[in-house]
Amino acid sequence: MLQISHRGTQMPASPIRKLVPFADAAKKKGIHIYHLNIGQPDIETPQIALDAVRHSTFKVLEYSHSAGNESYRKKLAKYYESVNIHVSPDDILITTGGSEAIFFGFMSCFDPGDEVIIPEPFYANYNGFAMEAGVIVKPISSNIKSGFALPPIEDFEKNITSRTKAIIICNPNNPTGYLYSKEELETLKKLILKHHLYLFSDEAYREFCYQGKHFSAMELTGVEDHVILMDTVSKRYSACGARIGAMVTKNKQVLQTALKFAQARLSPPSFGQILGEAAIDVPSDYFAKTKSEYISRRDTLVKRLNAIPGVFCPNPGGAFYAMASLPVDDSENFCKWLLESFNHKNQTVMLAPASGFYSTPGLGKNEVRLAYVLNEDDINKAMDCLEKALEEYPGKISKRQAESAVTNS
Amino acid sequence: MLQISHRGTQMPASPIRKLVPFADAAKKKGIHIYHLNIGQPDIETPQIALDAVRHSTFKVLEYSHSAGNESYRKKLAKYYESVNIHVSPDDILITTGGSEAIFFGFMSCFDPGDEVIIPEPFYANYNGFAMEAGVIVKPISSNIKSGFALPPIEDFEKNITSRTKAIIICNPNNPTGYLYSKEELETLKKLILKHHLYLFSDEAYREFCYQGKHFSAMELTGVEDHVILMDTVSKRYSACGARIGAMVTKNKQVLQTALKFAQARLSPPSFGQILGEAAIDVPSDYFAKTKSEYISRRDTLVKRLNAIPGVFCPNPGGAFYAMASLPVDDSENFCKWLLESFNHKNQTVMLAPASGFYSTPGLGKNEVRLAYVLNEDDINKAMDCLEKALEEYPGKISKRQAESAVTNS
Repeated sequence: MLQISHRGTQMPASPIRKLVPFADAAKKKGIHIYHLNIGQPDIETPQIALDAVRHSTFKVLEYSHSAGNESYRKKLAKYYESVNIHVSPDDILITTGGSEAIFFGFMSCFDPGDEVIIPEPFYANYNGFAMEAGVIVKPISSNIKSGFALPPIEDFEKNITSRTKAIIICNPNNPTGYLYSKEELETLKKLILKHHLYLFSDEAYREFCYQGKHFSAMELTGVEDHVILMDTVSKRYSACGARIGAMVTKNKQVLQTALKFAQARLSPPSFGQILGEAAIDVPSDYFAKTKSEYISRRDTLVKRLNAIPGVFCPNPGGAFYAMASLPVDDSENFCKWLLESFNHKNQTVMLAPASGFYSTPGLGKNEVRLAYVLNEDDINKAMDCLEKALEEYPGKISKRQAESAVTNS
Repeated sequence: MLQISHRGTQMPASPIRKLVPFADAAKKKGIHIYHLNIGQPDIETPQIALDAVRHSTFKVLEYSHSAGNESYRKKLAKYYESVNIHVSPDDILITTGGSEAIFFGFMSCFDPGDEVIIPEPFYANYNGFAMEAGVIVKPISSNIKSGFALPPIEDFEKNITSRTKAIIICNPNNPTGYLYSKEELETLKKLILKHHLYLFSDEAYREFCYQGKHFSAMELTGVEDHVILMDTVSKRYSACGARIGAMVTKNKQVLQTALKFAQARLSPPSFGQILGEAAIDVPSDYFAKTKSEYISRRDTLVKRLNAIPGVFCPNPGGAFYAMASLPVDDSENFCKWLLESFNHKNQTVMLAPASGFYSTPGLGKNEVRLAYVLNEDDINKAMDCLEKALEEYPGKISKRQAESAVTNS
């Protein structure tokens, strides 16, 4: 009998994309959907970056070096310098999206049966890469009441075994929007030194910090060999389709190992590298402008959410996501209902049920993730829909039930 | 102690890229190198394909669907129709290069410890993907004397165990250039039916067949669920840097499983998809022109090689590679020596030692792979270098020794 592999069977489908068929059906009925469910920004890709591709004049679209073009790695080192990350081009491996940086890191540092600790809720695709690498994810719960701050270090200690190889953080965080402080990173530093662990830091949203400065795991001193930075141009330059990221580390052995995996897939995309290299020259006010746009959106979203009875949304310090608890029985049912059975003036809103970001069964059942990747006007219209929907939804629970659900989660 | 994973340690470095530092050193000495070592064609990428990217007008470089743009999959189905492969857009998953099609296929169909049978010499990166998937490669030797035809079916039978999950072929073959006949594929069909195996068919070089028509594994009837096609635009349109390939199969379960792996990495490169879609509209004489160019090159290369005393090169029926046995002690030493210690009129040639394409230790020791990706003039100059080098090389062996080496390999 022809069979599917066990890992293929167990591989999780994307929780964010699971609702897509319901959205398609709603659209067919002529209903307009505000997409707050995915991190696809509407911000324009910088002209200078697109132009570099469009004005290119080469005749043959060749393979690049497996580690990425040297010219790009040189410029990228300068970009990192500008954000206080001191690396040389030789510390950088250009990857096909941030996704591949995660994959190469897992493959290079972990063997099947090894364990990694990740504060939950976390970026759902870490589960997918863990499955590919045969690695076991040990989640440690963070809480909406604390705005998803780093869980107490004892919770990490309790979960460390002889198979534990790494702590993985996303900073600022997807899905919570939480921005880890320098102090929290210093706490993690002690932990990884004590237990000889890698620290994988996913900093896809580095440029989107709204309260205080971003402190990168790469700025920690004395743990240079422990830290693996996973990065991407996707969000930084609103260039998700470029599929260009980077794995950055001072650990030469890890980087050389990752290079072997990179050689097997030959090279990262050439057009995307041209775009990524040119994007480094965006005008100096580019990020300031983008950031102020996101701050307005966040402020509108958070204010509107917290004004709805029974809804609680902590103010996110970074990225472009917010997590909110809703007065509903089950946010997955609610999100489906929004698409299947609801409309307000022929419009509805699509949200990501939070359960897909938790690894512990049952957690996040009344939470959703909202990506504020639409303009303020649209966010307001989306919130009008949500407000109305929470009045009509048959599975609504009382304010008291909602509060107790938040306290217990 | 921080450690590298076992699989990372065991992961093979690219045998083709191993000699690069020696080439760099030679170039620094001012020596011109004819690169016959890698499959990077010098043929221009079709203008229509490059223009589609350069004339694009979108403002935001977005993620695409994880399976690739629907418009591209529709056109790709039509391309396949034109080469007698009857599939629907839903049978196609767009991948990041052919590499990712191999990876998704392995992950979806095999578990760690499973075995796959591959006629050797074979594309070296299959080893890398097998390592990532924890799969064991069982090589079956083909022979330069027969031009690397399909080994006797008994050799396959002998190697099939309860863990064998698939036969993998590359047709036409990299590195041998051998074009499998319809009869050979029908033989394999019986084998996969008898033992319930998948047949993975890598057809990256489908458009480059010089003797007879290409017969695709997808044309086999009655084994639709068994066949997984791995494809790429890299060689077909001389667009290696696009990083666009496809995994194609009628087996819905396999494709749906692969889609979960595709979702984890979000989407294939957007620019590359635009290029791939436009490339399907190349003028009808495009492949005929390219093919006639490659035939001239092959004829020149093979004729020149066989004219050198002690050298034997079977005439390849497809792709743009030729394997040759040389009168040398060790082709890896010889290739290094060509870069380190030799020049003819300040020029030398870079070849790929064949041992990297064999899995059985010791095989291919006096063989090299030559990629005829340079124009005829350059091929002639490269052959002048090789001819001279074989006169001077200190590790040269006699004609009799060379012939006995070929017979025994």
